[in-house]
Amino acid sequence: MTDMATSPDILYGHVKNIYPVFRSITGKGIRQTLEYISGKVKDLSISHVASGTEVLDWTVPEEWNAYGATIRRTTGEVMIDWAWCNLHLLQYSIPVHARVSRSELEKHLYWIEEQPDLIPYRTSYYRKDWGFCLSAHQRSLLTDDEYDVDIRTELGPGRLSYGEILIPATAPGQDTGEVLFSIHCCHPALANDNASSVAIAIEVIRELQARTDLRLSYRFIFIPGTIGSITWLARNRDTVRYIRHGLVLSCLGDAGAPTYKQSRQGNAAIDRYAAYLVQARWGGKVVPFEPYGYDERQYCSPGFNLAVGCLMRSPNGQFAQYHTSADNLDFVTPAGLHASFGFIMDLVAMMEKDFHPISLCPYGEPQLGRRGLYRAIGGHDGDDPESAFDQMTLLWVLNLADGKHSLLDIAQRAGKPFPAVAAAAEALMRVDLLARPA
Amino acid sequence: MTDMATSPDILYGHVKNIYPVFRSITGKGIRQTLEYISGKVKDLSISHVASGTEVLDWTVPEEWNAYGATIRRTTGEVMIDWAWCNLHLLQYSIPVHARVSRSELEKHLYWIEEQPDLIPYRTSYYRKDWGFCLSAHQRSLLTDDEYDVDIRTELGPGRLSYGEILIPATAPGQDTGEVLFSIHCCHPALANDNASSVAIAIEVIRELQARTDLRLSYRFIFIPGTIGSITWLARNRDTVRYIRHGLVLSCLGDAGAPTYKQSRQGNAAIDRYAAYLVQARWGGKVVPFEPYGYDERQYCSPGFNLAVGCLMRSPNGQFAQYHTSADNLDFVTPAGLHASFGFIMDLVAMMEKDFHPISLCPYGEPQLGRRGLYRAIGGHDGDDPESAFDQMTLLWVLNLADGKHSLLDIAQRAGKPFPAVAAAAEALMRVDLLARPA
Amino acid sequence: MTDMATSPDILYGHVKNIYPVFRSITGKGIRQTLEYISGKVKDLSISHVASGTEVLDWTVPEEWNAYGATIRRTTGEVMIDWAWCNLHLLQYSIPVHARVSRSELEKHLYWIEEQPDLIPYRTSYYRKDWGFCLSAHQRSLLTDDEYDVDIRTELGPGRLSYGEILIPATAPGQDTGEVLFSIHCCHPALANDNASSVAIAIEVIRELQARTDLRLSYRFIFIPGTIGSITWLARNRDTVRYIRHGLVLSCLGDAGAPTYKQSRQGNAAIDRYAAYLVQARWGGKVVPFEPYGYDERQYCSPGFNLAVGCLMRSPNGQFAQYHTSADNLDFVTPAGLHASFGFIMDLVAMMEKDFHPISLCPYGEPQLGRRGLYRAIGGHDGDDPESAFDQMTLLWVLNLADGKHSLLDIAQRAGKPFPAVAAAAEALMRVDLLARPA
Repeated sequence: MTDMATSPDILYGHVKNIYPVFRSITGKGIRQTLEYISGKVKDLSISHVASGTEVLDWTVPEEWNAYGATIRRTTGEVMIDWAWCNLHLLQYSIPVHARVSRSELEKHLYWIEEQPDLIPYRTSYYRKDWGFCLSAHQRSLLTDDEYDVDIRTELGPGRLSYGEILIPATAPGQDTGEVLFSIHCCHPALANDNASSVAIAIEVIRELQARTDLRLSYRFIFIPGTIGSITWLARNRDTVRYIRHGLVLSCLGDAGAPTYKQSRQGNAAIDRYAAYLVQARWGGKVVPFEPYGYDERQYCSPGFNLAVGCLMRSPNGQFAQYHTSADNLDFVTPAGLHASFGFIMDLVAMMEKDFHPISLCPYGEPQLGRRGLYRAIGGHDGDDPESAFDQMTLLWVLNLADGKHSLLDIAQRAGKPFPAVAAAAEALMRVDLLARPA
Repeated sequence: MTDMATSPDILYGHVKNIYPVFRSITGKGIRQTLEYISGKVKDLSISHVASGTEVLDWTVPEEWNAYGATIRRTTGEVMIDWAWCNLHLLQYSIPVHARVSRSELEKHLYWIEEQPDLIPYRTSYYRKDWGFCLSAHQRSLLTDDEYDVDIRTELGPGRLSYGEILIPATAPGQDTGEVLFSIHCCHPALANDNASSVAIAIEVIRELQARTDLRLSYRFIFIPGTIGSITWLARNRDTVRYIRHGLVLSCLGDAGAPTYKQSRQGNAAIDRYAAYLVQARWGGKVVPFEPYGYDERQYCSPGFNLAVGCLMRSPNGQFAQYHTSADNLDFVTPAGLHASFGFIMDLVAMMEKDFHPISLCPYGEPQLGRRGLYRAIGGHDGDDPESAFDQMTLLWVLNLADGKHSLLDIAQRAGKPFPAVAAAAEALMRVDLLARPA
Repeated sequence: MTDMATSPDILYGHVKNIYPVFRSITGKGIRQTLEYISGKVKDLSISHVASGTEVLDWTVPEEWNAYGATIRRTTGEVMIDWAWCNLHLLQYSIPVHARVSRSELEKHLYWIEEQPDLIPYRTSYYRKDWGFCLSAHQRSLLTDDEYDVDIRTELGPGRLSYGEILIPATAPGQDTGEVLFSIHCCHPALANDNASSVAIAIEVIRELQARTDLRLSYRFIFIPGTIGSITWLARNRDTVRYIRHGLVLSCLGDAGAPTYKQSRQGNAAIDRYAAYLVQARWGGKVVPFEPYGYDERQYCSPGFNLAVGCLMRSPNGQFAQYHTSADNLDFVTPAGLHASFGFIMDLVAMMEKDFHPISLCPYGEPQLGRRGLYRAIGGHDGDDPESAFDQMTLLWVLNLADGKHSLLDIAQRAGKPFPAVAAAAEALMRVDLLARPA
């Protein structure tokens, strides 16, 4: 269903550019990332929300920026330097400039015993603390009695920033529904989580901005995780009702099979589209909603209960590289990124094409012969061979076109590919046998 | 459940009489067939609709009659003669009297390469053409350069004819519902498709016309396929709402297992009756609705969406003899016809007996002892051993007699035969513990 | 979930006291039994309904009392004496004092050919008759031509008696719902059926009467089977609507696995609680409703259709000792009684704890950190290790707290134990994140 104009290399190029930036949920790094996006797509608006603003049950935190962080021996020898890897610094560390005993230092160190060469990614957004993340190997070298700790950070009133693009529907007779894509972009040097999704979203936006036939509107938000979606929801509380389908994008660049996590509703249209595509086209798997993971937790909270699922390849917490320094430019591949881009365009194609057709000739079968459709074999739609349809598909569409069945319902009852059913519906609309609902 | 007074031989005798008549969707042959039926049953009304009449999305075609058709060598030797087999002529062939080249002739020949001895049945109702159907063997003998083609047919303004019988409900406290049986009778020398169903319908009508205890009304229509049901629906558009159950009868004389094709609704009462009988009594199978096959396509179009299924033995297109000269008097057997007759009478029995009982003593169990029903074992209903009921069946009927459960619902929840449940309900009505809904 | 203060021996002690009393559906024995119960629990009210009173479709029968019954040889030798075993006398036997032929006597004897040493239990409440129940062995000794039969009974106007206790809800913000426990206590020397349930009910009542935190009210009725529940329903026809859950207790002292028989509704809350407990804790099995068995037949008649199931161990009619002299003090065990007591207290715990929570912070996730619940591990509730909950359980409760999901719904969707979900809901209520429905 998709036009694969975007190349794997373009996607990978974005990841290479985004990956090294030091980001947190607030501060210069996330703004630098939003500026990168703004340079690639049209009409990105960047919003800033002041620290201390109340958002739903939360408060926008102080802004945090980091400029350097080291652990040195008292001899001056540098043992850990943030400049080596920006995961070394515990996110939201307060400034420290002190000589500390080894036992005191160890209370502030984070490592992974089972993965002795990897540096973990850790945060302390809402509890004031300082710390270093390092490999178990690095940690084993810290045997002196005392160390000099130097953390140069600023934590104070500032702003939380996020980016947003609305691509309005352009087709004649367009729909009022909106599609939400939510991409967290608050993590520092983690390539899959979530530079991959930022890269893919940029290219999806470029595709959609180039089209003039969109029936739905598309909204993309680039936000810090959790507090970002909560802030956005707080500021859009009344308009989220227009969201018909939504998707959180995360960890989309690795070589794992696609994983679609259902919305809380479980049987929303997007859940059914994804389930169809997993079975018919993508492979991979569908997993049920649970109130843990990414920002779908917020969109699917009971007050909103939006039809928002989450698309991943290897799911959060289920790959060894997750939240470590191994989630790097080797873990993400051009091919993985490009396949994920295709999955999203497949979903967009279903969102765009599906509707509940109404037969304009519902009493008895229409006479297809005088309309040139008797034993018609429909041509392909673009280059998708699955969109070829046969006489039987035409008859199924006509038979179920009572306004109660979507094209996907029809495809599943008829045992025909969705693209063929959509193409048959198009053919029937051209001869005025079928209409969209008023 | 059925009184099998009708013998296999009577049914087969009808097929023998009907089979040889040359029929099409209009013309003398179908009228001759209707007259045969009229001679066997009471009160058949025959309707005639003028060519050109608009019926739903269609137009009643011109009337077609054939008088002869041959292919001769230029020497005069007859190679194909309609008199040998009335399938030889393409239905709705226009008149031709010409010498044609072999290559021209071949554009108008229809044969089956894989079944070299069989003559296919072909039509061209809505595209003006001429042609011959012949065996692949016959065709291989046509090696001359030229042939004389002689087709003596008439195509012009005339009438489409169909037959209709209404057998009104006769029981006291009768129901307003109607049962529709639809039988196509437009095919020439095909014994199973559909002389078999005409024969069986005649005998079902005779059974029902002899009864005085019918709760439902029964309507039988004998029509040309497709255009006939469309014409009948166009003329009865507002009254079809009274149809509670309906059944298209087709291909009911061969030795295959019974096949019930569900209505579009899929869970209509008739679908459940047939599923019950397939499982409990008939064997065979239930297949889902699809918008292809016989006149159920019209009854189940979305504007009507009637509860009309289709009863067959070997389904259309799934037996080697289908639409060929092998669908003859050898393919249809007296035993096959008689069993199908029994299936229909089983369905009638369920339609007649089922209702949603209402307990007249719904608070606590009624005391069965003082009504002579304590540990009662109910007698047989007629000669059906399945209609014997036990105490447990009585208790189930009473327990579920809340107006929301049909007798079939009760039978299935209780795990008891439907005839036993129906007999238990009768026994409870006799002692005023149970009533029909008002 | 249960406080097992009641010991197996206390329960068995009740059975030993209740077992020997000669009971029928009316008369001194059932009143003596009610007086025993009255001596063990507070506030038992005993109702008396006069013979001849119309109750639903039935009439309260005459009161029956027995004083002695023998079969003697004409020599005076006693062959059968009611004093040996109170099952010997057919219940509701009329008085007889006559010499009868052996053939006449045999019309009035009941024995079990397949179990030659056991005396059966038989009744003739609604057909005036007399008779003796005896072992096949005893019967084989009756070879004389004539015997002297002496049955000293009284059958005449009197009263039907039953006992009733209401334990009102005591918790602040209590519920209006009521739980019905129904225990038949009309059988003579049958220990499992149903001295076992009387014994257990006494101790359940004592537990509940000692509590001050009951959200629901609990009603226990001790009744003669069938006519007792019919009489009680007739006198409480309008108030049964307050019954939210109900349970018939029967045959609860043997060593068989627990059997929960569903209510007619099949998916009532109590049906789901029992199914959960069978799967998670008890073992045993759930069997579907059928309109046969104990007094659930009356509660589940279509006019009432109450959510009343039946708890048994070995089900009625499915153990060899059923309705015979082998249903004695050896068949019932202290351990079996005590386990059944626990099952009932488990059900009570679920009835008490379950509700449909409503999030007070439904838009986005609440910030658990500032409420001390971030990564909280909840403590045990009493001594139930299953009530420990984790962060994920808290998130599930919050996510599904939309007033449409019960705690059991949440437990089942989350795959968490019900006690953990209930404890998490308690923790969330303590920090004002969750409320009960208004």
